[in-house]
Amino acid sequence: MPSNPLTAYELTDLRERRSVKWREYPPDVLPMFVAEMDTPLAEPIAAALTGAIARGDTGYAAAGRLPEAFADFAADRYGWRTAPDAIRLVPDVMYGVREVMTIISEPGDRVVVNTPGYPPFFYWLERIGRQVVRNPLVSGPDGFRLDLDRLERDFAAGARAYLLCSPHNPTGRVFTREELLAVAALADRYDVRVVADEIHAPLTHPGARHIPFASLDAPAAARAIVVASASKAWNLPGLKAALAVPGPDARADVAAIHAEVSEAAGLFGVIASEAAFTHGRPWLADLIGALDANRQLVGELLADHLPDIGYHLPQATYLAWLDCRALGLGDDPAQAFLRDGRVALAAGPTFGEAGYGFARLNFATAPDRVTEAVRRMAAALDRAGAR
Amino acid sequence: MPSNPLTAYELTDLRERRSVKWREYPPDVLPMFVAEMDTPLAEPIAAALTGAIARGDTGYAAAGRLPEAFADFAADRYGWRTAPDAIRLVPDVMYGVREVMTIISEPGDRVVVNTPGYPPFFYWLERIGRQVVRNPLVSGPDGFRLDLDRLERDFAAGARAYLLCSPHNPTGRVFTREELLAVAALADRYDVRVVADEIHAPLTHPGARHIPFASLDAPAAARAIVVASASKAWNLPGLKAALAVPGPDARADVAAIHAEVSEAAGLFGVIASEAAFTHGRPWLADLIGALDANRQLVGELLADHLPDIGYHLPQATYLAWLDCRALGLGDDPAQAFLRDGRVALAAGPTFGEAGYGFARLNFATAPDRVTEAVRRMAAALDRAGAR
Repeated sequence: MPSNPLTAYELTDLRERRSVKWREYPPDVLPMFVAEMDTPLAEPIAAALTGAIARGDTGYAAAGRLPEAFADFAADRYGWRTAPDAIRLVPDVMYGVREVMTIISEPGDRVVVNTPGYPPFFYWLERIGRQVVRNPLVSGPDGFRLDLDRLERDFAAGARAYLLCSPHNPTGRVFTREELLAVAALADRYDVRVVADEIHAPLTHPGARHIPFASLDAPAAARAIVVASASKAWNLPGLKAALAVPGPDARADVAAIHAEVSEAAGLFGVIASEAAFTHGRPWLADLIGALDANRQLVGELLADHLPDIGYHLPQATYLAWLDCRALGLGDDPAQAFLRDGRVALAAGPTFGEAGYGFARLNFATAPDRVTEAVRRMAAALDRAGAR
Repeated sequence: MPSNPLTAYELTDLRERRSVKWREYPPDVLPMFVAEMDTPLAEPIAAALTGAIARGDTGYAAAGRLPEAFADFAADRYGWRTAPDAIRLVPDVMYGVREVMTIISEPGDRVVVNTPGYPPFFYWLERIGRQVVRNPLVSGPDGFRLDLDRLERDFAAGARAYLLCSPHNPTGRVFTREELLAVAALADRYDVRVVADEIHAPLTHPGARHIPFASLDAPAAARAIVVASASKAWNLPGLKAALAVPGPDARADVAAIHAEVSEAAGLFGVIASEAAFTHGRPWLADLIGALDANRQLVGELLADHLPDIGYHLPQATYLAWLDCRALGLGDDPAQAFLRDGRVALAAGPTFGEAGYGFARLNFATAPDRVTEAVRRMAAALDRAGAR
């Protein structure tokens, strides 16, 4: 029987943590917002970090064999063959995305980003002087999907690049090969460079299959750059390591990432990520089993207690993107859940206009805490209704 | 008798490390270049990190009580009272410097930097579109000092900011209160903002005293921003945490550092740094004792084996800035030391034109390895002379 990494810690253990999830709110708030998991470290990662402490190995980061470890993982898991020599270390996925965007585009250029979208995308792209073109996903009976017609219009209007989040945060969509090939065809037609944030890729659930964008058979894929990391699937965001992985025709762009950028990564991130990609698969399988159960549990709990919330089972990751527009809680329902239920979700509007009336719930925790979160949300709705 | 953290590891232990110092060159090269130390972690730091591993505490970084820990350390060690609430977490000193420069100056503005200077200063200031005005230190019989006349000319010519490295890397100068007050007076006269990289401050040797720039009694000091870190003194560069500390009239500037920047720091850096500032003083005292002995040893070894190298005893840190111009090894003597002696020093020219003919030797290692490094340098000089 697989072990469940989500139930290893009690709430009292977790409250000892120093990370944002456990320090942002007072202890009466149940935190379900930021994308951290309540798991222990996978044993090979803990062992690698313990070794680093013993040898005082806290100097500047070198990529070492991390690119090879990622390439082996990607070949085995996705059938994607990529050249380790062409991969560059970066401190985190967002840093990698903006370095790559700085290299492949100019200030003032338009960059297309789907909405709802990871909030730092907007901040950092604007910070480096790019014009963000917001391209909303459309919601259908089976969940969110790309609006290819609108994507074509946005590309045709003069976009230089497309920042594709695949699998998609916050909706949990895993895009199909057909969708991605259609994106590649449009990118080729309008000469748009694709940069793919694939941080959630290892967390794809049964029934879906992640296709690395740069693995597609299309010129736009060969010119694409994937930014990948072990940080989401093995819960290592505080250790600071990610990789910029070029398609075969984007190697010069990735090689242009300055050595100062690679050296600004975290050495413990490198050590932990290499252990994750090399020895972390059994732990990941247990985790995905537990997350798969939790994504179902969220659906059952909502059906029982909050049937007016719209929820599509995410095909990847541990984020539930909740359509709360029918609840009458306004543009930012997370405010009501926090105020009246003492449960912290991520605020929908920070994901762009497409997030008005939505909230994002992180279910990477023990099932009883997921249950408690939905109970608190339902109580908040009752109280808000009574106001 | 104090223990010596520099002798804890054998070379075979150190070669297991994954950091840049131990991965950049093949094993026949003795690495004395990048600013990492060959020390074990201070016990309170190792204990804090071991605890973080046990609780899986690898999520996003929150500053927590690190600002208070730094403020207590600064009050006790430098007599500098600073407000913890005004301090912001940043991923590293260089990142903090460029965020602050982005806030207090505009693209195209001139920023004065002393040369020789830490190489990333030039890269990052140019990367954010600032004009770097190189201001050479001058060498006298007692070592390097600021050229205040030239500094005034550079300020008068329209500088917006001055990036002061204090204590100074690579020369090891600890600037006196009089020098710093003279800088402050010039900054006030010409309306120049001072940003002080004080990463080396805890490593000040007996006989010198570090004065935090923002602690001076001058308007320019009140408007100054100090960027500080535990990363140099406790050897934590790979864990990614530093602090932007404003003078009383610069709080709004530091408050403008975006939350995305603070959250990009490393959580293990925060945890380790808090342990260092709070419980790391005994270890630091032992370290400084050992480094003090090594700075003397470097002088004795050079006098015996390489008397034509110019060397001023550094007043802080573990870097020997070696004037090799009399050796006939050209602009970059580190090349000859590496090629003919298999010892890696930092290349002088990367520190700017003032570094031509110089090399930087990192002596934060066991005395026998310092001895071996100088022996290899002398052997290289013999071989180069025989060519």
